[in-house]
Amino acid sequence: MVCSRAMASKTPVGFIGLGNMGNPMAKNLVKHGYPVIAYDVFPEACKEFQDLGAQVTESPADVAEKADRIITMLPSSPNVIEVYTGANGILKKVKKGSLLIDSSTIDPAVSKELAKAVEKMGAVFMDAPVSGGVGAARAANLTFMVGGVEQEFDAAKELLTCMGSNIVYCGEVGTGQAAKICNNMLLAISMIGTAETMNLGIRLGLDPKLLAKILNMSSGRCWSSDTYNPVPGVMEGVPSANNYQGGFGTTLMAKDLGLAQISATSTKTPIPLGSQAHQIYRMMCAKGYALKDFSAVFQFLREEETL
Amino acid sequence: MVCSRAMASKTPVGFIGLGNMGNPMAKNLVKHGYPVIAYDVFPEACKEFQDLGAQVTESPADVAEKADRIITMLPSSPNVIEVYTGANGILKKVKKGSLLIDSSTIDPAVSKELAKAVEKMGAVFMDAPVSGGVGAARAANLTFMVGGVEQEFDAAKELLTCMGSNIVYCGEVGTGQAAKICNNMLLAISMIGTAETMNLGIRLGLDPKLLAKILNMSSGRCWSSDTYNPVPGVMEGVPSANNYQGGFGTTLMAKDLGLAQISATSTKTPIPLGSQAHQIYRMMCAKGYALKDFSAVFQFLREEETL
Amino acid sequence: MVCSRAMASKTPVGFIGLGNMGNPMAKNLVKHGYPVIAYDVFPEACKEFQDLGAQVTESPADVAEKADRIITMLPSSPNVIEVYTGANGILKKVKKGSLLIDSSTIDPAVSKELAKAVEKMGAVFMDAPVSGGVGAARAANLTFMVGGVEQEFDAAKELLTCMGSNIVYCGEVGTGQAAKICNNMLLAISMIGTAETMNLGIRLGLDPKLLAKILNMSSGRCWSSDTYNPVPGVMEGVPSANNYQGGFGTTLMAKDLGLAQISATSTKTPIPLGSQAHQIYRMMCAKGYALKDFSAVFQFLREEETL
Amino acid sequence: MVCSRAMASKTPVGFIGLGNMGNPMAKNLVKHGYPVIAYDVFPEACKEFQDLGAQVTESPADVAEKADRIITMLPSSPNVIEVYTGANGILKKVKKGSLLIDSSTIDPAVSKELAKAVEKMGAVFMDAPVSGGVGAARAANLTFMVGGVEQEFDAAKELLTCMGSNIVYCGEVGTGQAAKICNNMLLAISMIGTAETMNLGIRLGLDPKLLAKILNMSSGRCWSSDTYNPVPGVMEGVPSANNYQGGFGTTLMAKDLGLAQISATSTKTPIPLGSQAHQIYRMMCAKGYALKDFSAVFQFLREEETL
Repeated sequence: MVCSRAMASKTPVGFIGLGNMGNPMAKNLVKHGYPVIAYDVFPEACKEFQDLGAQVTESPADVAEKADRIITMLPSSPNVIEVYTGANGILKKVKKGSLLIDSSTIDPAVSKELAKAVEKMGAVFMDAPVSGGVGAARAANLTFMVGGVEQEFDAAKELLTCMGSNIVYCGEVGTGQAAKICNNMLLAISMIGTAETMNLGIRLGLDPKLLAKILNMSSGRCWSSDTYNPVPGVMEGVPSANNYQGGFGTTLMAKDLGLAQISATSTKTPIPLGSQAHQIYRMMCAKGYALKDFSAVFQFLREEETL
Repeated sequence: MVCSRAMASKTPVGFIGLGNMGNPMAKNLVKHGYPVIAYDVFPEACKEFQDLGAQVTESPADVAEKADRIITMLPSSPNVIEVYTGANGILKKVKKGSLLIDSSTIDPAVSKELAKAVEKMGAVFMDAPVSGGVGAARAANLTFMVGGVEQEFDAAKELLTCMGSNIVYCGEVGTGQAAKICNNMLLAISMIGTAETMNLGIRLGLDPKLLAKILNMSSGRCWSSDTYNPVPGVMEGVPSANNYQGGFGTTLMAKDLGLAQISATSTKTPIPLGSQAHQIYRMMCAKGYALKDFSAVFQFLREEETL
Repeated sequence: MVCSRAMASKTPVGFIGLGNMGNPMAKNLVKHGYPVIAYDVFPEACKEFQDLGAQVTESPADVAEKADRIITMLPSSPNVIEVYTGANGILKKVKKGSLLIDSSTIDPAVSKELAKAVEKMGAVFMDAPVSGGVGAARAANLTFMVGGVEQEFDAAKELLTCMGSNIVYCGEVGTGQAAKICNNMLLAISMIGTAETMNLGIRLGLDPKLLAKILNMSSGRCWSSDTYNPVPGVMEGVPSANNYQGGFGTTLMAKDLGLAQISATSTKTPIPLGSQAHQIYRMMCAKGYALKDFSAVFQFLREEETL
Repeated sequence: MVCSRAMASKTPVGFIGLGNMGNPMAKNLVKHGYPVIAYDVFPEACKEFQDLGAQVTESPADVAEKADRIITMLPSSPNVIEVYTGANGILKKVKKGSLLIDSSTIDPAVSKELAKAVEKMGAVFMDAPVSGGVGAARAANLTFMVGGVEQEFDAAKELLTCMGSNIVYCGEVGTGQAAKICNNMLLAISMIGTAETMNLGIRLGLDPKLLAKILNMSSGRCWSSDTYNPVPGVMEGVPSANNYQGGFGTTLMAKDLGLAQISATSTKTPIPLGSQAHQIYRMMCAKGYALKDFSAVFQFLREEETL
């Protein structure tokens, strides 16, 4: 396995963005023996890495000066644009032939723009957003959906394998983002659908466990009904069994649906349900569900009329 | 197995409604040796059964006079109401202790009303709508979702087993309908969601087969993506591989979503996506998709803008 | 004016349903000198009328025995069905030639069914739902939308003019209901649309009063923007200026949208926005807005995301 | 009136974008005696202006060199960005103190970005999108919604008054776009709502003219019902009376709803109906309605189910 090569042979890897996800991801690179060149806009986020032997720098440009492979893991498009094209951005000092991998979840159109700018500098850009949360990041169990020139995929895979268990090549630049956005849009739709359906069935007199069982052996079956059922009492070990704590937050789902909406608008693609799902998660954010798992849409919909 | 009992011991079974579905269902009863007492509003539908040795009658009331177990398989609520409570309806001559099983897909509230009327006559009513189409009806491979008094379930099962492979007890009267409506609502939502998602992914540059593969190993997975994918070329042996011929027609889906809508309205249950799915299938019916399989929503959504 | 005829010449008028709306309506009949024969399922509701000289009866059938013109004003379809066709219903003792006017807001299909049953008894049925709330009822300022045989319209108008200022003939039986349901569906859609638009504009930096002014002189203009603006501070004398007290309650709007939904489902009419409006008011009912004016949808949508 | 000043005193005005709208607008400036400096990406579009005595240039930069007041009228955000910030863009040669007015309809966030870039060059940017179509442009009857520094409004008004009859100051940069987007979103919602409502009413037995009359004297009243009714036969002189020719095309409405959607996504504003309206116009574009007036949604929704 590529990651078991002797540490001596490993050249430094830059890592920009050491938040909830970036932190455990970068640690997994350290564990695999990569000298990490770290940067985060919040200096405190870097401290821990200094203690682990990583070199902490002053700016993305500094990272680009010291490493020719860089991974970025940032909250949203504007952050990624700033880190790449800002006054002290990567592009100010990127070396020819560098491999720049962005694992943030952003608009695929922005990934394409960045790829062009990176290419002009003689370097390579790939988008590689992840699925799986903080737990999967810690366990090096993430799925990476990778977009970019196919010849560079192996080079990217060498690094990504240290942080994830499933590295999928999706096509040209932007298709990694596209795959992630598409999956999460369908996930949101089927989760809300499952919540509506379970709620309707219960009000019509069905036992929720029985209804879940019937759906799961029928054509209504989906991941949200058979693996992550949103109704408390139907399954164990899922957020609905724990007051919708943990899991994938409603705000994050709303963000991903916003990206789907933007992509659909710019490609003139009708997404009647995806767009409605976006609105529902947006309303939930304003009704106190922002930090609850996105399966809490069951709770949001089931509330009884009160006079 | 209960159906292998000697024919001699079998008392007649009434069957009302010998259409696309009722025809093969009743034939399976004949095959299992039940003397069938048949009725259909269209006399031609009965001819075939006369040749098979069934006794054809003049009205539902006549059926009720001659059989104390009756199965009804009719297009919609008004037909069922007429067959039960009309001038020559079942209730005019139903015998005490009769078992009346309605396999039509109708509003669960109507099932409950009929159950009350039947009970007043000293007979028993169960709702037992099916899933699976004409093929499954022929192969005695239907799924029956059964609502009614639990003590009578075995008696119903004896007959239903001749026509289906999966007989599920759902709870009190109406819950069979509820289960079917719920499954089909979630099915419609996830089918439209899959169609939107596949279309968006394709426009963002993803290969449809690859996208389907990614969804199916991720949280977006659903029956519509992994078993009945709506995009031509992704799977074989499904309606999308055959110009959306066969399968489950858009009109039928629109009808079931109408029932979901009515049930949700009367129980004051919010179904934002179910309700939108209903509107989309309704629009499709008016745009020439009425007889195509419901997965044709992919085709409906993907059409390119034309000037 | 027909109501100024001498009291002596006036024959009794039955009134069934003396709730929030029925009470002031019946009082206006008394004021115009009609001897009122009253009934309500809650005996207390009748007391006041006894004091006013009205004759209080034991059942709708009793009313029908004593009056050949009867007005009903009831909460919903099941109540109307019971009052007409129940064990002690109007139809038990209705006299030939009687004029039965139902001012309840119900499914037009139910109105049509009742009209048939009434006609069989040799009497006449008209649907005449109202627009305008309790205030308009007190001020005899209601609008009546009347469906039924045109030749009977003048007879109905004689009575309705005592309670309303605008009596509109809409067509055959059921069209009164249809007109009311249609108006309220469009009202709900444009109210939610106005609330979304005002909220979006405010977040984009526009002053709400200025935005309202711009909309009202442009093609976005509607009753909800120019007469009943949902944003506090934009207009005076409307519920939004008074914490959404008074006005037309969210539950009532949800009920009317449920009727629109049922009518649309049964006529296979696509109502994508009407149906979504229904779902939104249904969700609002469950989120504590049931008794607030329906313009509170602005408040529902504007809430800020909270973490 | 400011436009009646002697021609001698008039300094040149740049005009970039001489399409359907820009052409008559620029001509009105010529009529009022302004020396026009013209540019369009299609040279043929400029010819006519050469004949009118305007000076035609090679690039936006050239326009900026020769005029210190410039109006741009372009199809969409990317065009505006290119004209301002491209290799031969306005910003390459803009003079200090210049007044740059963009009358294109674009994302207000883009207007704000451009305003910042313009300000850095010591010039002034204002957004001033129009409402009213080609006819209003010819008749100098447009409405301009203007965003920008208030002190500069009078200077902008001097020019805009030559092309429009209603010049509304909306607030800081971007609010002109915001006002336009908001109005058109509410317009789209109420138009679809009117179409659904009229269609439902007709199917319930109401005469369309009568229904329109009832709505227009009630709370369902809106511009789409009383001034631009989408049902053929209800009004004269509107696109519905002329097979939906002319008017405001479905593609243009879809574009404006896309801008509303983008603005709502970036400000995290829920727009459940606006977003659904967007999807409906998007589907219409793909179903052959792209060039029809947006009131053709009535035709889109009313089509009968065909088997």
